[in-house]
Amino acid sequence: MKEYEIVPDPDAFGLSEVVSGVDHNGNDVELPVVVEKPLTLFLNKQEVVTMMTIGDYPEYLAVGYLLNQNMLQSDDIVTGVDYDEDLGVVVVRTPSKTDFEEKLKKKTQTSGCAQGTVFGDVMEKFDDITLDRDARLKTSWIYNLSKKINQLPSLYLKVGAIHGCVLCEEDKPLVYMEDVGRHNAIDKIAGYMWANKIGPKGKIFYTTGRLTSEMVIKTVQMQIPILISRSGFTAWGVDLACQSGMTLVGRAKGKRFQCLSGADRLEFDADPNQVADESKKFQRKAGQ
Amino acid sequence: MKEYEIVPDPDAFGLSEVVSGVDHNGNDVELPVVVEKPLTLFLNKQEVVTMMTIGDYPEYLAVGYLLNQNMLQSDDIVTGVDYDEDLGVVVVRTPSKTDFEEKLKKKTQTSGCAQGTVFGDVMEKFDDITLDRDARLKTSWIYNLSKKINQLPSLYLKVGAIHGCVLCEEDKPLVYMEDVGRHNAIDKIAGYMWANKIGPKGKIFYTTGRLTSEMVIKTVQMQIPILISRSGFTAWGVDLACQSGMTLVGRAKGKRFQCLSGADRLEFDADPNQVADESKKFQRKAGQ
Repeated sequence: MKEYEIVPDPDAFGLSEVVSGVDHNGNDVELPVVVEKPLTLFLNKQEVVTMMTIGDYPEYLAVGYLLNQNMLQSDDIVTGVDYDEDLGVVVVRTPSKTDFEEKLKKKTQTSGCAQGTVFGDVMEKFDDITLDRDARLKTSWIYNLSKKINQLPSLYLKVGAIHGCVLCEEDKPLVYMEDVGRHNAIDKIAGYMWANKIGPKGKIFYTTGRLTSEMVIKTVQMQIPILISRSGFTAWGVDLACQSGMTLVGRAKGKRFQCLSGADRLEFDADPNQVADESKKFQRKAGQ
Repeated sequence: MKEYEIVPDPDAFGLSEVVSGVDHNGNDVELPVVVEKPLTLFLNKQEVVTMMTIGDYPEYLAVGYLLNQNMLQSDDIVTGVDYDEDLGVVVVRTPSKTDFEEKLKKKTQTSGCAQGTVFGDVMEKFDDITLDRDARLKTSWIYNLSKKINQLPSLYLKVGAIHGCVLCEEDKPLVYMEDVGRHNAIDKIAGYMWANKIGPKGKIFYTTGRLTSEMVIKTVQMQIPILISRSGFTAWGVDLACQSGMTLVGRAKGKRFQCLSGADRLEFDADPNQVADESKKFQRKAGQ
């Protein structure tokens, strides 16, 4: 895959809009803010959920959500994904009918930005997944990825109040998706990987958001063995990463990071003191 | 109410735990990280949802969740709130049985950190609520609240990766709750207000998190006319604030803020240039 295959398009129509107000001096201001729109997902005739999203890549979001919720298996046949922008509806069609009555009874709200409903059997599948033990993570990749991702034009830098997720390989960002919730951004990448038959082999996942239980669960669902974030950890996120043998790197800002699981995959090939601290600049621009 | 009636207790047992790993130099590190635990909420015999929470104030969280989801009305009789720590279950009991079958069919996942499931009739109630037009917001209060809240010892400053919500009056923080998702923090405050018969009159709501649609909806549910955040906006959050006549202030950091709805409540009584920029210090400590 080539670097920057998918990157944010911060100026795309409809992803942000300008609203007016006053600032701290009482002066009129016009401010671009990120858009969130409801998107209702159906699997065949079954309404599954209504998600709030910036609205790009609804088809990838729909399929990725179903895959990461274990409602759809990667080898399932999908006969169509139909998106109706006016209705705000996306329908994923499969030959065989599915029934979520039981699953919908057992829904778990997950923490923080890790939006969404995780169903009972997600954790069952979690235990069956073995992540690639031979995957490596050079510390120079962590620094290069952070710098490239932070400097790439994005809705985050333009309007803030948004999360990003990036599928990477070595020090190359491949697919960079943003959304109001990072759960949507990761689901859009899962959908993109499925649609383009991209496997987890050699892949690294980067997120701007916190390393909560749900982010670890979804990354394991996607069988990606390495998860990096510039944000912090939750204890259960760390527990799950240890259980699954994932390499979990957080608070990756400037020269600093901490690895709280799977440090055996790390190769310290970079001198941290040669890394300029870019983080504050981007923090300041962010609306988070 | 007195200032600092409820404040974070960052050293309380069980809210954070120390995990070990390696840092960017390959040195062993021990890092405190925030805990997230599942808490399953029942309304009488009906299982409603399982929430991920730091686990303090489960009774307030339970009642506040039901109030903010419109499953419970503020004048409903509650005969008991029973919390079983070992089971991770909290049961809210009412004399009359309730049935959520229809509501559970229509669930909306809301954006970003604004975690959780908003049911169809929440928006109906939203339109019926009139916020106090006479409420005022002095800009000196915005600066004083931001400074007091940023400097108060908290899990945010200790371990990061957590959100805070604060019920305020003028420039006094009254009830400061934190949780892995700010939706939990606001629900805990709603539960506290209900349990202690605290009305919305004269109150101001502060959150560390983004001003998404759900934060505005919940603040309107609580009939609080003023919502302040140090984070950014989403377009629908701004739309809803305008619809409801709420005063919405975001990106309140150092001397800066923007007011994108209800600016008529603002009184510019402070000189922004006299305000020291404290924000970077706290951003740097944060794991968000």
